[in-house]
Amino acid sequence: MQYHVNGDLVDADDATVSVRDRGFQYGDAAFETLRAYGGQVFAWSAHQRRLEATCDALSLDHDLSGRDLRERVHETLAANGLAEAAVRLTITRGESSGLTPTDDADPTVVVVAEPLPRGGLDGERVWDAPATARTVDAQHVPEATVPAVAKTHNRLDGVLARIDAGDADEAITFDADGHVTEGTTSNVFFVDDGVLHTPSLDLPVHPGITRWAVTELADDLDIPVEEGHYRPEDLRGADELFLTNTTWEVRPVAHLDGATYDTCKVGVRLARAFADVVEASHY
Amino acid sequence: MQYHVNGDLVDADDATVSVRDRGFQYGDAAFETLRAYGGQVFAWSAHQRRLEATCDALSLDHDLSGRDLRERVHETLAANGLAEAAVRLTITRGESSGLTPTDDADPTVVVVAEPLPRGGLDGERVWDAPATARTVDAQHVPEATVPAVAKTHNRLDGVLARIDAGDADEAITFDADGHVTEGTTSNVFFVDDGVLHTPSLDLPVHPGITRWAVTELADDLDIPVEEGHYRPEDLRGADELFLTNTTWEVRPVAHLDGATYDTCKVGVRLARAFADVVEASHY
Repeated sequence: MQYHVNGDLVDADDATVSVRDRGFQYGDAAFETLRAYGGQVFAWSAHQRRLEATCDALSLDHDLSGRDLRERVHETLAANGLAEAAVRLTITRGESSGLTPTDDADPTVVVVAEPLPRGGLDGERVWDAPATARTVDAQHVPEATVPAVAKTHNRLDGVLARIDAGDADEAITFDADGHVTEGTTSNVFFVDDGVLHTPSLDLPVHPGITRWAVTELADDLDIPVEEGHYRPEDLRGADELFLTNTTWEVRPVAHLDGATYDTCKVGVRLARAFADVVEASHY
Repeated sequence: MQYHVNGDLVDADDATVSVRDRGFQYGDAAFETLRAYGGQVFAWSAHQRRLEATCDALSLDHDLSGRDLRERVHETLAANGLAEAAVRLTITRGESSGLTPTDDADPTVVVVAEPLPRGGLDGERVWDAPATARTVDAQHVPEATVPAVAKTHNRLDGVLARIDAGDADEAITFDADGHVTEGTTSNVFFVDDGVLHTPSLDLPVHPGITRWAVTELADDLDIPVEEGHYRPEDLRGADELFLTNTTWEVRPVAHLDGATYDTCKVGVRLARAFADVVEASHY
């Protein structure tokens, strides 16, 4: 494998950053997880806007154009002969010591790619089975500490939540008032009496691109959507539960804590509609 | 300069970690800031215990002995001919992808050192003047997200607080209820009517080693100490205010927001007592 580091394609073993890089010392970095289908990045504009939103939230200035970043992603895909892939694109605040950023730091740009099954409805799935999920005590980072819109290299909240969740595939976290927020790497949806529900963005919930796509597709399919504040019992008592993210797309949940879901009809309809969008946009 | 990376001394320019290292991807790493006086690490046992407390909080298993880690620190000091120095010792959870840690990851150990003035009362000071500090809206990471005992590479809370604080030397943060917690890299003390106050450890406050030394020394000097819950107005209305950490030792504050402190008598007594401890233990 070859990765892209600061403008150069290098062998994976040589893909490194300085121990003085702020991305390493402080997790002071913005990133996006991208999905490539047929060699093309899916929903690049949305990802690029969100990367900029992260950089704005962190006051991380850089003069990298979207065109340049996208080119580095595509060069990485091409160098590895990858058509179906997951890609992690990172911009750090560069090298400097001390928490206070300096003006002269030069951002570090890293692109890492790995092959992924095609996914969708006809291809091999990325996930091998519906997910098991567990609610954990670990509290979501409050909006007033680091804004939820920001995707950063500060992910210990998620690491600790996953450790708490044991062998479950995903951990579901809460805000300080006990409202369901999201999974550590996914947004949460549930269906009750035919209505699709998901935690609203006034909570510390990451505005996932697949979350956005799924709510749009539900509108198209005349599935009523409600965004609100929910408790774990709302999820446990629901008819169906599923998770969304760029890699999993739509992944049904089979178990949450002691609750079992026998169906994921609405989720599968939305997964099908999402697969159609992917097909239509790239083939 | 030479740094220590995974058991080897390497030139600073070659001191790197993989872009797949969890310390880079997720800030999934424990660290300590150490102080060397006369070529010896100060309060090593206390730092080692705290490093272990961080690793416990993160469930970060490693089989590195304290003796081994200390040796790497001293090798780094010796390689650079450093007697008076600040040292950053990091243990990451090694390389693996996905938030959930794997059992087979091999921890990455990094030691970075930089020369520092001797400090104390007779030597050149590390800081050039009493600090200016500012209270910021950025909320401290809650205990239920990442325990305050843990010193980790997730430091965006501090980076954002420092950005908010503008040209001030330190930013003072609060918990969700508005209680003063600490500075981004320091503990906070204030003196009112001869009583020394500092936020108590039931709040998300880092148990700083200099914080601990200063409260012990205050006891020795018959200065009454109270640990409690305080509001910013308690600090602004205090007779004196100072900050402590391993690098600054005891640093008086001259200004907090609009408040000015004309004296730091108690702080200077404690700084003198601390300097005596350093002298006694290492010379």
